[in-house]
Amino acid sequence: MNADPAGIQHPSVSVNGRTYRAPRRPLVVVCVDGCEPDYINQAIASGRTPFIGGLRETGTCLTADCVVPSFTNPNNLSIVTGAPPSVHGICGNYFWDRDANAEVMMNDPKYLRAGTILAAFAAAGAKVAVVTAKDKLRALLGHKLTGICFSSERAAEATIAVNGIEGVPALVGMAVPSVYSAELSQFVFAAGVKLLERERPDVIYLSTTDYIQHKVAPGVGVANDFYAMMDGYLGQLDALGATVVLTADHGMNAKTDAFGRPNIVFLQDVLDRAYGAGTTRVILPITDPYVVHHGALGSFATVYVTSSVAAGDAAAKIAGLPGIDLVLPRAVACARFELPEDRVGDLVVVSERLTVIGTSAGKHDLSGLDAPLRSHGGVSEQRVPLIANRKAAELPAGRRWRNFDAFDLALNHLQ
Amino acid sequence: MNADPAGIQHPSVSVNGRTYRAPRRPLVVVCVDGCEPDYINQAIASGRTPFIGGLRETGTCLTADCVVPSFTNPNNLSIVTGAPPSVHGICGNYFWDRDANAEVMMNDPKYLRAGTILAAFAAAGAKVAVVTAKDKLRALLGHKLTGICFSSERAAEATIAVNGIEGVPALVGMAVPSVYSAELSQFVFAAGVKLLERERPDVIYLSTTDYIQHKVAPGVGVANDFYAMMDGYLGQLDALGATVVLTADHGMNAKTDAFGRPNIVFLQDVLDRAYGAGTTRVILPITDPYVVHHGALGSFATVYVTSSVAAGDAAAKIAGLPGIDLVLPRAVACARFELPEDRVGDLVVVSERLTVIGTSAGKHDLSGLDAPLRSHGGVSEQRVPLIANRKAAELPAGRRWRNFDAFDLALNHLQ
Repeated sequence: MNADPAGIQHPSVSVNGRTYRAPRRPLVVVCVDGCEPDYINQAIASGRTPFIGGLRETGTCLTADCVVPSFTNPNNLSIVTGAPPSVHGICGNYFWDRDANAEVMMNDPKYLRAGTILAAFAAAGAKVAVVTAKDKLRALLGHKLTGICFSSERAAEATIAVNGIEGVPALVGMAVPSVYSAELSQFVFAAGVKLLERERPDVIYLSTTDYIQHKVAPGVGVANDFYAMMDGYLGQLDALGATVVLTADHGMNAKTDAFGRPNIVFLQDVLDRAYGAGTTRVILPITDPYVVHHGALGSFATVYVTSSVAAGDAAAKIAGLPGIDLVLPRAVACARFELPEDRVGDLVVVSERLTVIGTSAGKHDLSGLDAPLRSHGGVSEQRVPLIANRKAAELPAGRRWRNFDAFDLALNHLQ
Repeated sequence: MNADPAGIQHPSVSVNGRTYRAPRRPLVVVCVDGCEPDYINQAIASGRTPFIGGLRETGTCLTADCVVPSFTNPNNLSIVTGAPPSVHGICGNYFWDRDANAEVMMNDPKYLRAGTILAAFAAAGAKVAVVTAKDKLRALLGHKLTGICFSSERAAEATIAVNGIEGVPALVGMAVPSVYSAELSQFVFAAGVKLLERERPDVIYLSTTDYIQHKVAPGVGVANDFYAMMDGYLGQLDALGATVVLTADHGMNAKTDAFGRPNIVFLQDVLDRAYGAGTTRVILPITDPYVVHHGALGSFATVYVTSSVAAGDAAAKIAGLPGIDLVLPRAVACARFELPEDRVGDLVVVSERLTVIGTSAGKHDLSGLDAPLRSHGGVSEQRVPLIANRKAAELPAGRRWRNFDAFDLALNHLQ
């Protein structure tokens, strides 16, 4: 136990092989879903984010690598465990559970193999609060957490028994927004500010949704509105005395040709034509219950092959398709991207920056796309911001920063 | 000699191993410098490019790979020769001439090792005109060309003897613009329209400058103004009966962190610290006489090492630097990127999408940058549009299109 200047006792914790010093002031870690660095750059240039712009002088800005596949669940879990998916087990939003012989969402905490920094601080006596935009992440982020944990999506249903809080919409002063809206993220920030005011947690984790980032490019249209909104809340968190660290689960790129039409490799169709239906299984780990804004199309797929198909032959065939960037056997991919081998197919396929991978043309509903497709999942969306509202004492030279170093930066490096 | 429907005789030509059918109507090939596909996508979405937007129904849009290094000179020469730098020899704007033991611009036609499609058509009796924004490309594009060839930059100085035309500003109806302006490109398009009206060339090649693309992101600020301007001229070329094919020399990406500060690996400084000054020579092939808008910072470098340094050791050291994507020995790089081995260093270094490579910190003047750095040079800027104002009969499935297939698409595939 350390003593802070005010004499209050705080715990430090060790989680997944790394020790985190106790927060000396409230810590807010924000995961801005789909926050390609240029969104912030363009918003600053527009003059509409004075708080973030001011951090150029008073804060810290690193560019970090997220986890590949650059999807939401693996990266949120990496951030809160401080570890890659090879440690925590969550390597997609969706996977093929070979034991159950079923394709399932990876939302259930039973798939989580590591404890979180959040739960560890709570167990050590710190007050912890988690707010996530979509409910899909709530159970994972709140696993074994004694504290507050709710989603914007189901804020009205929060109870003391399940979520450690009730009456959230009244506290926040907002109606519960649509799951497909910028307001769903605004609700997260507004809740963070109100929680900090009322509950003064030691640690807050806020996680937004990338509805806006899937829809518009950096600097364009409502993108700057979103970041201006965010800027206001971050400024309030700062004014309330918190250390604020912001990172992202993944970046975001256009996935279209110059006419705005999606560049899609329908990989299951290709493999079915080559080897026959039922001989290979293409899994898209981007799949989740909320696919309207991306049609379940991302830049990462994993492929299971049956014994009748030579994996090497399939790999060569896939590698020859225009738009495919990488085809790696399981072991190589899992070593490179730090993924759990038992939850990854025989091949990992990554498409290039402007191309996504689909299964079969008939299985992707693009009717909900009202703007040219923007998505993520590949190595091309691996670079994300890692920003703080304080300066760091001395940062190790040449370190490859990861988004899952957010708590390490906040607690072990910032002034 | 083929006969077109009007009975006029036209030549077909064979250049660098490929045969191009004679143009049945005037052909205008446009190289839009730095035209990341999303610039067009965003401009269409803004509603300000009705002509290009209409091509979704009546034209063709492919996404093609440009030549790496994704710089202006290598790619313009690839487009007009229909061949990679291993054939035409121009692998940068700038290189180390080992014979001369000097770092020199690669603007001189003495470095060009292949004939152009333009010169071949002119030699076969076609009327050919070339307009380039910056004068640096004029001599290369016009090599052995009997026809019209001038730059916007030096339009006022054009003479019949040297350029095949005089009185250009009066013809175009514009004063000669600043070399750092969007108008320099506008002058190219306006000249193209006037030349098509007055001279009715069989083949026109137009090449713009990426001043705007270095300055602003797709869809932001003056980007849509630029594409709206372009749209008007392309519509006029179409209305005058030309086949118009548009491609780009390279794409463009932000090269900054989220605060807009450039991510730079000063490679010569790193190598000098490791091995001592004078033991390695870092060449940045982006270097040209016009560096104000990018500070000679791009995502590609080549490194010469002296015998006192083991290339493999230097390669491992460089590969470990954050922001570096690829380090390849000469032979591997030249095979992969189709480059001439005698003009490439012992190592080729490519940085990732958001990072550029510099030589020494003291040698890059960034004072001219009035916006966050955007640049190119790497694999991350390899995807470019390949657009036509007509449909293609039947395109080969699975073909990897290159920007230097522009004449092939235009003459051998379009209806």
